[in-house]
Amino acid sequence: MTRRRTLWIALAAMAGAGMRIDAAGPPLDPRRIVDLTYTLGPDTPYWPGGKYHPFKSEAIATLDADGVYSRAYCTPEHLGTHLDAPNHFEKGQIAIDQIPLADLMAPAVVLDISEKAAKDADALLTLEQLRAWEARHGQVPKGSIVLLRTGWGRRAADAVSYRNMDPEGRLHFPSFASDAATYLVGPREAKALGIDTLSIDAGISKDFPVHHVVNAAGRYGLENLANLEKLPATGAYLIVAPMKIGGGTGGQARVFALLP
Amino acid sequence: MTRRRTLWIALAAMAGAGMRIDAAGPPLDPRRIVDLTYTLGPDTPYWPGGKYHPFKSEAIATLDADGVYSRAYCTPEHLGTHLDAPNHFEKGQIAIDQIPLADLMAPAVVLDISEKAAKDADALLTLEQLRAWEARHGQVPKGSIVLLRTGWGRRAADAVSYRNMDPEGRLHFPSFASDAATYLVGPREAKALGIDTLSIDAGISKDFPVHHVVNAAGRYGLENLANLEKLPATGAYLIVAPMKIGGGTGGQARVFALLP
Repeated sequence: MTRRRTLWIALAAMAGAGMRIDAAGPPLDPRRIVDLTYTLGPDTPYWPGGKYHPFKSEAIATLDADGVYSRAYCTPEHLGTHLDAPNHFEKGQIAIDQIPLADLMAPAVVLDISEKAAKDADALLTLEQLRAWEARHGQVPKGSIVLLRTGWGRRAADAVSYRNMDPEGRLHFPSFASDAATYLVGPREAKALGIDTLSIDAGISKDFPVHHVVNAAGRYGLENLANLEKLPATGAYLIVAPMKIGGGTGGQARVFALLP
Repeated sequence: MTRRRTLWIALAAMAGAGMRIDAAGPPLDPRRIVDLTYTLGPDTPYWPGGKYHPFKSEAIATLDADGVYSRAYCTPEHLGTHLDAPNHFEKGQIAIDQIPLADLMAPAVVLDISEKAAKDADALLTLEQLRAWEARHGQVPKGSIVLLRTGWGRRAADAVSYRNMDPEGRLHFPSFASDAATYLVGPREAKALGIDTLSIDAGISKDFPVHHVVNAAGRYGLENLANLEKLPATGAYLIVAPMKIGGGTGGQARVFALLP
């Protein structure tokens, strides 16, 4: 046997062994996972309108009195890091418990308008910017979850600054423009749109066009995502794990991003 | 170049290409994932004691009146498919929001006492049975999440049969024996114990030894898991995605099992 043949045999054996180890090892490496979920509590920013209210919890048993510590809580479905189900803004669309598993796991694409949003709290990701992004990074892969990083995560600990309400009661925070959303759930077949602000529509919106576009297509939204600055533009993979509330219009979700 | 050399080159190239495809493809296949989570609703069985109450939800906005459908809900932390945090039964242990990601993802081992439990609702998984299982399947791998299948999932749609309360108010459903739990979180270093009943302690238990053993070791429990009959004894991998409630003693969790 020549030395070269021996080398090839060794290479082939190493490659084969490597593949077997991959198949048998753990499918996920927790050290390569980013938690995109905020902790829920009484200070979690909530939507300032209608009958929305803060997250409330109370002890219903304590170790000292009952030998067990247990609590109960009340919350709007749309508070903290949460999912907007297709039935949130459109009739005839599915509830949160009916979203197929195949739509809760997908490659993530991260668009970044944080520089623009630092100068203009009403900044929108436009279709033109989206096309410029595609010219640089390639097409948004079909079936992705498209995340918009606005830099609003820096305000998340301060509900006043995060909502950014003006004296007339209008909110100011950045989001998707409706033409970009239409393009993403249309030709790009995005499974969901996600953002690091209170809403996939801009704060100043009164008619919520992005919610309508997304929900009318049977897709869902993710709001108040944490840690988007830790994700690459492409190559991450999301696991979205929402509360399975029967008929729910949305619900808190734990969202994990697997880094490439 | 000889034909054999060419063969080795081709094999090495194929092996190399295969590894690259694995790395770039989706890390999860939703068709090979089982959702171990029950849908939450007013009929979800709840713990019949103290200040526990059913899952309640109400509309706070409707499409017809408000142009948006939105709801709020109230629930005990320990209702439906949920996680018992280490602070549930032991002082000085962490809350649900503090559980490291590395403890929320782990290989699953499934033990089955459904035949025994069909004859005796107070059946326990004993240390002796656990050792017999290990003689057949090999040691429970360190760092596993150990699930106990009791067959109680067949009763899940009927809260009365699922709780199985006798005329004296005692519950009757199967679970882990404390010696088995001690062995699992001790030498076997289980990250968590999970079950398809209301509790990781048997229904008739008054002092909750398994909860104490598990929580004193800093480990957590999973209760009211669905679909355990769809998992193999070994080879599945769990992703546990609990509500991230600040200081929570537990909370609803979405639990996914990746099949081997």
